Amino acid sequence: MSGRHFLQIPGPTNTPDRVLRAMAAPTIDHRGPEFAELTLGILGSLGAVFGTTQPVVIYPASGTGAWEAALVNTLSPSDRVVCFETGHFATLWREMAVRLGLEVDFVPGDWRHGVDPQQVADKLTADAEHAVKAVLVVHNETSTGVTSRVAEIRRAIDATGHPALLLVDTISSLASIDYRHDEWGVDVTVAGSQKGLMLPPGLSFNAIGPKALEAAKQARLRRSFWDWQPILDANSRGFFPYTPATHLLYGLHEALRMLDEEGLPQVFARHQRHAEATRAAVRGWGLEVLAVDEREYSGSLTAVSVPDADRIRALILDRYHLSLGSGLGRLAGRVFRIGHLGDFNDVMLAGTLAGVQMGLAASGVPIDPGGITAALDRLQRP
Amino acid sequence: MSGRHFLQIPGPTNTPDRVLRAMAAPTIDHRGPEFAELTLGILGSLGAVFGTTQPVVIYPASGTGAWEAALVNTLSPSDRVVCFETGHFATLWREMAVRLGLEVDFVPGDWRHGVDPQQVADKLTADAEHAVKAVLVVHNETSTGVTSRVAEIRRAIDATGHPALLLVDTISSLASIDYRHDEWGVDVTVAGSQKGLMLPPGLSFNAIGPKALEAAKQARLRRSFWDWQPILDANSRGFFPYTPATHLLYGLHEALRMLDEEGLPQVFARHQRHAEATRAAVRGWGLEVLAVDEREYSGSLTAVSVPDADRIRALILDRYHLSLGSGLGRLAGRVFRIGHLGDFNDVMLAGTLAGVQMGLAASGVPIDPGGITAALDRLQRP
Amino acid sequence: MSGRHFLQIPGPTNTPDRVLRAMAAPTIDHRGPEFAELTLGILGSLGAVFGTTQPVVIYPASGTGAWEAALVNTLSPSDRVVCFETGHFATLWREMAVRLGLEVDFVPGDWRHGVDPQQVADKLTADAEHAVKAVLVVHNETSTGVTSRVAEIRRAIDATGHPALLLVDTISSLASIDYRHDEWGVDVTVAGSQKGLMLPPGLSFNAIGPKALEAAKQARLRRSFWDWQPILDANSRGFFPYTPATHLLYGLHEALRMLDEEGLPQVFARHQRHAEATRAAVRGWGLEVLAVDEREYSGSLTAVSVPDADRIRALILDRYHLSLGSGLGRLAGRVFRIGHLGDFNDVMLAGTLAGVQMGLAASGVPIDPGGITAALDRLQRP
Amino acid sequence: MSGRHFLQIPGPTNTPDRVLRAMAAPTIDHRGPEFAELTLGILGSLGAVFGTTQPVVIYPASGTGAWEAALVNTLSPSDRVVCFETGHFATLWREMAVRLGLEVDFVPGDWRHGVDPQQVADKLTADAEHAVKAVLVVHNETSTGVTSRVAEIRRAIDATGHPALLLVDTISSLASIDYRHDEWGVDVTVAGSQKGLMLPPGLSFNAIGPKALEAAKQARLRRSFWDWQPILDANSRGFFPYTPATHLLYGLHEALRMLDEEGLPQVFARHQRHAEATRAAVRGWGLEVLAVDEREYSGSLTAVSVPDADRIRALILDRYHLSLGSGLGRLAGRVFRIGHLGDFNDVMLAGTLAGVQMGLAASGVPIDPGGITAALDRLQRP
Repeated sequence: MSGRHFLQIPGPTNTPDRVLRAMAAPTIDHRGPEFAELTLGILGSLGAVFGTTQPVVIYPASGTGAWEAALVNTLSPSDRVVCFETGHFATLWREMAVRLGLEVDFVPGDWRHGVDPQQVADKLTADAEHAVKAVLVVHNETSTGVTSRVAEIRRAIDATGHPALLLVDTISSLASIDYRHDEWGVDVTVAGSQKGLMLPPGLSFNAIGPKALEAAKQARLRRSFWDWQPILDANSRGFFPYTPATHLLYGLHEALRMLDEEGLPQVFARHQRHAEATRAAVRGWGLEVLAVDEREYSGSLTAVSVPDADRIRALILDRYHLSLGSGLGRLAGRVFRIGHLGDFNDVMLAGTLAGVQMGLAASGVPIDPGGITAALDRLQRP
Repeated sequence: MSGRHFLQIPGPTNTPDRVLRAMAAPTIDHRGPEFAELTLGILGSLGAVFGTTQPVVIYPASGTGAWEAALVNTLSPSDRVVCFETGHFATLWREMAVRLGLEVDFVPGDWRHGVDPQQVADKLTADAEHAVKAVLVVHNETSTGVTSRVAEIRRAIDATGHPALLLVDTISSLASIDYRHDEWGVDVTVAGSQKGLMLPPGLSFNAIGPKALEAAKQARLRRSFWDWQPILDANSRGFFPYTPATHLLYGLHEALRMLDEEGLPQVFARHQRHAEATRAAVRGWGLEVLAVDEREYSGSLTAVSVPDADRIRALILDRYHLSLGSGLGRLAGRVFRIGHLGDFNDVMLAGTLAGVQMGLAASGVPIDPGGITAALDRLQRP
Repeated sequence: MSGRHFLQIPGPTNTPDRVLRAMAAPTIDHRGPEFAELTLGILGSLGAVFGTTQPVVIYPASGTGAWEAALVNTLSPSDRVVCFETGHFATLWREMAVRLGLEVDFVPGDWRHGVDPQQVADKLTADAEHAVKAVLVVHNETSTGVTSRVAEIRRAIDATGHPALLLVDTISSLASIDYRHDEWGVDVTVAGSQKGLMLPPGLSFNAIGPKALEAAKQARLRRSFWDWQPILDANSRGFFPYTPATHLLYGLHEALRMLDEEGLPQVFARHQRHAEATRAAVRGWGLEVLAVDEREYSGSLTAVSVPDADRIRALILDRYHLSLGSGLGRLAGRVFRIGHLGDFNDVMLAGTLAGVQMGLAASGVPIDPGGITAALDRLQRP
Repeated sequence: MSGRHFLQIPGPTNTPDRVLRAMAAPTIDHRGPEFAELTLGILGSLGAVFGTTQPVVIYPASGTGAWEAALVNTLSPSDRVVCFETGHFATLWREMAVRLGLEVDFVPGDWRHGVDPQQVADKLTADAEHAVKAVLVVHNETSTGVTSRVAEIRRAIDATGHPALLLVDTISSLASIDYRHDEWGVDVTVAGSQKGLMLPPGLSFNAIGPKALEAAKQARLRRSFWDWQPILDANSRGFFPYTPATHLLYGLHEALRMLDEEGLPQVFARHQRHAEATRAAVRGWGLEVLAVDEREYSGSLTAVSVPDADRIRALILDRYHLSLGSGLGRLAGRVFRIGHLGDFNDVMLAGTLAGVQMGLAASGVPIDPGGITAALDRLQRP
């Protein structure tokens, strides 16, 4: 098939060729001086992306591993945690917590809303004995395109005076949607390499606040690979306690430079513009965006409700070389997801939306072809 | 600037990353067995792209060099040739012929039409003494988006019984627009690597018919670097008489494989569809395509008449990371050119046309925003 | 510094540029059909490298993670395991077992020998109640260059009739030193991407025998990320339960093709020749190989005893752009290690040994310069 | 075949992976602002490599083309030039001059010496009418490993007061062996990309002194593609008169940065050390270096006299994955040539010489195995 493939799933994203070329450099000694310089350079600029001056631990592992790391470093067997059913990934994180031996209070949801700060407050207020040790929030639900309001959740927790930790998954929001680990008082931020950071999958992260670091001293879930402390110790000299994923670190170094060149505020604004243009297209077609609360619209992906979504996606992939995200879990077959995050621009988005429009039409979905024009209208504004 | 650059000039084209990766292999010995295998493999499949079973000579040089090669191998000082003013590149080739010491009969044109077969016939009929030694035709004028009808030109020449050679420049048509060196009786076909062949610039070609090979024995323009014969001799063993551009040959090998995978008829059809969709957009905007005769519409690029074209192009490059071709020569500032050739697909074209539409609007050109929709309408048909 | 760096640590190894180029392909959808084809292709040929027809699980994580996976999938809290102090990595694996809540019987060693099969037999014979659930063996101790005789260990276990599982770390032996998961009756084989498999670090493996798969059903160490079962389930359709390290899988696919092209028996023989030539050089210099039992000489690396080893290594890196492995743990500063594994050949080894020889001389170590000649003597034989 | 290939022909040389990665960037618009910046950056630093502040013209062509350019820009039909038979390439350049219609006075030589400055003086002194328009000198004969003393030749010309131009081929010396276009008063320096400049083949150069530029105004050899003037005109704005070899320019930009990082004096000294070590090996083996005058030893390659050289080369390629240069022209089968130029270091040279030593031994050539040790002795000194 001729031309470039458009990888418009909500991550992994289109890796910039600058990053791919950086990753194609020869392997170096992970115990040598050149490596230490690389690590220290990365660690010096990585925090800014999380909005933190606290340590960020890098795992040579996928994002799911960083979920596990956040739990095993801070919690003990049978500890109670509160999770919110915002979608597929929140559900998976909850299942992980159960498997690791935690007691999970799972607040049901409709997969179209984010975490309700008031519900967080209610849960914690009701927990007078402070049995709840942590609140788990997925910042941006990749399965639904709904972004929870972490700052408000933090304020809700603070208002209760409850000491529970706040653990936040930013896998599909980091470096795409405004996020502030320190300012918002998040205790552990979980992230991955393959979305806004524009890298291939294979690295994941824990940004660690002081309260979490303190909790780690008492936490009794068994941990070895995921243990923060040996990593923090070795990082101080530019090394890792076990063999790091050297080439992904090359890529991370380059990606951080790219984010710095564009500027994080510009990156966030770009994602918002693209999300708005995408919603304009969806509505222009006469279709429905899954997210219902405009305060929770995702900047990095848009889920579109449509029957027989998988057949449409298959046609679009086959005919237009354009990959869209499938409906996951209870949304299987009922939505497709347009990723508009990472290394992206107006013309790529226009091509993407044009491909979706043509694919919908070819699939027999009754749409208004003005969707694309509505999107361009939005894109013509800053 | 985030996201991929869209290189929509009419060549060099977007080099596929498969080709770039093939070119990134280590250098090999150009006199060794591995190299001979590479060359013989390329020479075995290259002819099909030209529609020939005759030899094709590869130069480690740009397309302009292949123009020179076509002349110095077949002609002698003061020989008369006929050229047609179809646009900027036809004009440049004529200037080269003059500089090399040929007598040039330059038939004027309006830069909106191709070569008129009847004019060719008239010129040759009038040349009773057969002073004209060659007719030079640019198959696809890259400066105007007009494709001359080479098969008809050949028939016109044949009808006169005149022995002039037919030299054809296919730099922006080869592997994009149907072309048949043997069937159409072309004597020398000139081509370059950086358009339909999807390579970076740096290689160029002469496909050589038997009459041209015979003419080379008598031709007395001085030649050394461009001389066909030493190349043909060395090629038979898989080598070159001087150091070839090894890495571009790696790329050529991969590009030929890609063309074979898609199939040349499919490649030509794809270019036609994209050209039609582009013209639909142009007309949808209420603008004018430079080419006037529908038999001569180019499959590889479309020139659009618009005042102040360079300012528009600059804005589109700046705002949308999308490069368009400028007006050249007497068209400077009066047209922009959209390249839709090489490694390309529907979604890339839609993005391109969306970028042009937004750029025109932002430049204050009064356009109808239905252009993009008209293009998608066309793209939805096979 | 001019010229290529020689990465002659015992892993990560020099990644072949073929692999680096394969890894530079664009990211694809890890839930799409192209990805499924990639996975199934890899899984279809990966087992051969382990000498198994049983499942092999691939983690998007470093080798240390695969150690943890082998333990948490097969064992329960307070289970007893036997480890052998063959060197630094055996010691680290033991520490991991302790941290994960296992009871570890650590048989002391001198870091110059491999696991003694008789000691294994003695330990198991003494364990009449079958409290020992697993025997942990590092096949090739990367810190010492000593290879334990796994086939003999297996026979020793079998002779006792003890049901303990045999877990073997092949991180620095797989695809370098003859290894047979099925034939030798290993229950779990642990491996990593960055040594004989010639990839960058970032993937690791568990090859899983039927007894281990059965044990996993009862094992009660908490696991989620490392759990075999969801991976095996998803793998059957060509997918993974969480985002895989796509680009490293591209590299793995290419590396498996390279191993197949050379042929595993040839790969093993090459490593043996290079190991013999390296020992010839060491002895030629008048220095001592750390390994003392010739049945245990490593095919993938050679540790050389020398005072002030780190200063020598630093000089060699600085002057000759050649990285050697440092002494680890109790060998710190007392040995350097020459890696001769992965994508390597005679001329690269000769360059490596020449660099070491020049570096030793420049460091003031009294050596006989005939070392290099002794190595070439060996290399001149098949 | 496992491991890296050693490309030790005297060019093309081992392209550094930094350069290959730079060349793998996407194609850009050769008429756009990014391209202009690239060109002006290159032109600003390229002169230093030639030792000139005069213009350097870059051709998208191989070195042979730059030979032709030097002649057609400065000479007229039937002009007399003096060439010296220093080896194969000097002979080819002379043949080109003849084919282009020049009168060539070819001073015979034994292919073991460089140009004798006294002979130059004699030739010019004898030419009282100044019929000789140019003296053609190959600085470093790639076929013999003999370097002519250009500074002395210049002085010899000056002493005669003869106005002939001095045209010098530095294809295998530029950026390897000390060279000073301005200081030595060279009129045209011819160079190529694929040797000391560490690029793949495909670019070539003319550095142009003021006398040559003046001569170009009168020169009547027909020229178009090679014409300096349109290139110089377009270069002033950062462009080229025809499509440049964009990706090789990316590589050139990176290679110039690498040369600058190492420093030209260090680059020249490194080549001299490697040449001395190579000669030490050759003599250590008991074999003969082709070059006889120690003032003319080449820093970039060493030709070794040995019977049946092609069989030896084939064995070394086959067994050791190491390419050596063949004997060319009258030296065919009688020498092999070791290239030690470009991106190279001590350990790569040691590997190369080890491979040659093992190959000579395996071929039955009676050699002293002390050759490699003699080379290492030399390499241990600065």
